[in-house]
Amino acid sequence: MEIGSVIIFLAVILALARLGSLLFQRFGLSGLIGEILVGVVAANLVIGDWSFTGSLGLSSEGGHISFNRELLEAFSELGAIFLLFAVGLETRVKSLMSVGRAAMMVALLGVALPFVMGFAFVQAYDGDAHHAMFMGAAMVATSVGITARVIKDMKVLHTVESKIIIAAAVIDDVLGLIILALVVGAASSGDMSPASIALVAGKAAAFVLAAIAVALWVTPWAYSRVRRRRAAEAGGAEGDQTESHVSKLVFSIALCLAMAWLADAMGLAAIVGAFLAGMLLADYAVEWNLKDSVEPITALFLSFFFVNVGMQVSVGDFLDPAVVAVSAAVIAIAVFSKFVGCGFGARIGDRSLDKSSANIIGAGMIPRGEVGMIVAAIGLASGAMSSELYAVVVIMAVATTIIAPPLLARGFRKRYPCGCPEHEECRPGE
Amino acid sequence: MEIGSVIIFLAVILALARLGSLLFQRFGLSGLIGEILVGVVAANLVIGDWSFTGSLGLSSEGGHISFNRELLEAFSELGAIFLLFAVGLETRVKSLMSVGRAAMMVALLGVALPFVMGFAFVQAYDGDAHHAMFMGAAMVATSVGITARVIKDMKVLHTVESKIIIAAAVIDDVLGLIILALVVGAASSGDMSPASIALVAGKAAAFVLAAIAVALWVTPWAYSRVRRRRAAEAGGAEGDQTESHVSKLVFSIALCLAMAWLADAMGLAAIVGAFLAGMLLADYAVEWNLKDSVEPITALFLSFFFVNVGMQVSVGDFLDPAVVAVSAAVIAIAVFSKFVGCGFGARIGDRSLDKSSANIIGAGMIPRGEVGMIVAAIGLASGAMSSELYAVVVIMAVATTIIAPPLLARGFRKRYPCGCPEHEECRPGE
Repeated sequence: MEIGSVIIFLAVILALARLGSLLFQRFGLSGLIGEILVGVVAANLVIGDWSFTGSLGLSSEGGHISFNRELLEAFSELGAIFLLFAVGLETRVKSLMSVGRAAMMVALLGVALPFVMGFAFVQAYDGDAHHAMFMGAAMVATSVGITARVIKDMKVLHTVESKIIIAAAVIDDVLGLIILALVVGAASSGDMSPASIALVAGKAAAFVLAAIAVALWVTPWAYSRVRRRRAAEAGGAEGDQTESHVSKLVFSIALCLAMAWLADAMGLAAIVGAFLAGMLLADYAVEWNLKDSVEPITALFLSFFFVNVGMQVSVGDFLDPAVVAVSAAVIAIAVFSKFVGCGFGARIGDRSLDKSSANIIGAGMIPRGEVGMIVAAIGLASGAMSSELYAVVVIMAVATTIIAPPLLARGFRKRYPCGCPEHEECRPGE
Repeated sequence: MEIGSVIIFLAVILALARLGSLLFQRFGLSGLIGEILVGVVAANLVIGDWSFTGSLGLSSEGGHISFNRELLEAFSELGAIFLLFAVGLETRVKSLMSVGRAAMMVALLGVALPFVMGFAFVQAYDGDAHHAMFMGAAMVATSVGITARVIKDMKVLHTVESKIIIAAAVIDDVLGLIILALVVGAASSGDMSPASIALVAGKAAAFVLAAIAVALWVTPWAYSRVRRRRAAEAGGAEGDQTESHVSKLVFSIALCLAMAWLADAMGLAAIVGAFLAGMLLADYAVEWNLKDSVEPITALFLSFFFVNVGMQVSVGDFLDPAVVAVSAAVIAIAVFSKFVGCGFGARIGDRSLDKSSANIIGAGMIPRGEVGMIVAAIGLASGAMSSELYAVVVIMAVATTIIAPPLLARGFRKRYPCGCPEHEECRPGE
């Protein structure tokens, strides 16, 4: 390892990823598309004897993989882990359990329909059950970030539809990660018999339920004990706040990594453990300043994730007519299955919602983004996903984040033609 | 690279380093001692066939260095870089130039005397000029963290002595880094002729002066231009604050790494570039939320630095009578040279200060801590420092952080016997 080479490699990737992100944000698109394209360009930029990856020490040297290449992969994996940890920190078990029937039905049908349709399509297309499972899993998780931005820009945060979308997206994450755990487990055992799938399902369920139980009972108990002891000891001296925040941050990250490792060791997926670790700490995330301090770390590592996603897509795949055709089909399925599944779920869950509300909720749940790509990357790394289908998932994830905002905005404008409903129970349509 | 192994390695090191730090803080000592001892124990923990480093994938495998070992070194280096970046963010060129004559003299003599004495001692001891230079450079930089904590605990932040110490420590950093740049340059060229040293000095001076000039003129100009353009464009839409903070953070880190690389490529030391990058951004650090967002990143990587420092010290060295004797001498020189140099500097710089004030200032400048160890680590990595002297520097850095606080507290109690001087111009001795 040559430290100068490592440092400049990190600097260049960070700067380019950020530039790509800002460029796309300028045109009102999601920044992650820019970061991915930086990766695509980086992997394919060759001028004569000079290649971009070579100049950054990213190519293989004499047959063995260079340190920078391995570092990129480690940082990319850490980016996915910290992202899911941050999502977990926003997921409080108690508010999850108190979420309305409508949000629950939106999430359930919005997970079931995309999984079944994605699975069925790939099973019919290439007949590989592993490919089909990963495609189904990659279809499931909603990326609510882009939807949340539209909701914020249109000032419709207080509408029923917005609340249902945000609550449903959180349950969606939990369900999506359970499906991912199942899929990874089934793929890594290589055994698709009912008994083996039941075993994996049992492990995944036990892990998730154990984490929820710890979040509900053990963490609050331990927290109040420590707190009482501290209060008894302190008696005046307030202690060093900054130092104590650093301790909490470092221990939280260690917990996140340990649970990610545990999930990985159990044959589930590392990000499942990271998410559950975040969920365990969600009740204290604000008080311990965890959200604010995890954010810069996530920002640092996540750029490497997107660039790495881009670098693993070969430009050839993009231009391959078969890939283009499959992508078009998968995008159509991705949009249709969420739109219909979530819209239908909303109307079953809350009979008072009409068709225009269902359309808003369906459109808001369409974007896939990061988590879908992480799922595909896990599949690719374990050999359970072809590079062709990997490219298809990346295209699908990007396309859904472009398609959703205008649909969503139109839905809101149709439902609330009088303008921005600023108030709590603003349902002008009735 | 096996990602599970990487994740659990990171989790274990982080958790152990933090536990060590908390344990030592409980006894009122500096946490970094605990983190270093974790490294010492980790490197030497062997039970039968099982070794701690082996279980974490840190030992060499079949002759070639394992990924985890290289990752530890990269993280450790990044820890040093981010630490100096954070120090730079606290160093505003303008307030540096407006610092009093007293602080300037304290810094100058407090740098000159330790360097000369450290150099002379090692030159006399083993006759190796490279060793002597690095020892001198490792003697120079004051670690004001532990002093600041004592000052805060005793509530003497508003005394003249405290103000002089803090201002002098900042100038100290700049002078120390210039010396480091010179030493690294001279060692890497291997040529100790006056012409070669003049060349390195010229490069170092040009780099530092260019950075200061950019900080004074270019950054404010660019900043106001961007700001005016933004204001003209925005016209109402306030933009996404979080997203914009992320961009500023990522670009700042990219700048830090790029300047670290540039310094390294110029044959100076990477941390010199990182420090100057921080200094460039210091005027905007609060507004851009940079301090708060760099802190968690530094906290994450710095643990690896201290553990790595500990791992590179072999327990054998600690028990070697020669090392013990040299350590005792070096500790004595380290304490004496700062105490006398800084105390004398204070009295020359401000004639109104009496002996008891000079003693406080001298004691407050004694701790060396992180930066001394970073200097020694750079020397060790480049082969310009023996592992024996490396151990001596680590012991010296640790010892000075233990010795200083009681001396400092006694000094303050003697000077301000009436209790805590809370007010601005509290000089009860007069």
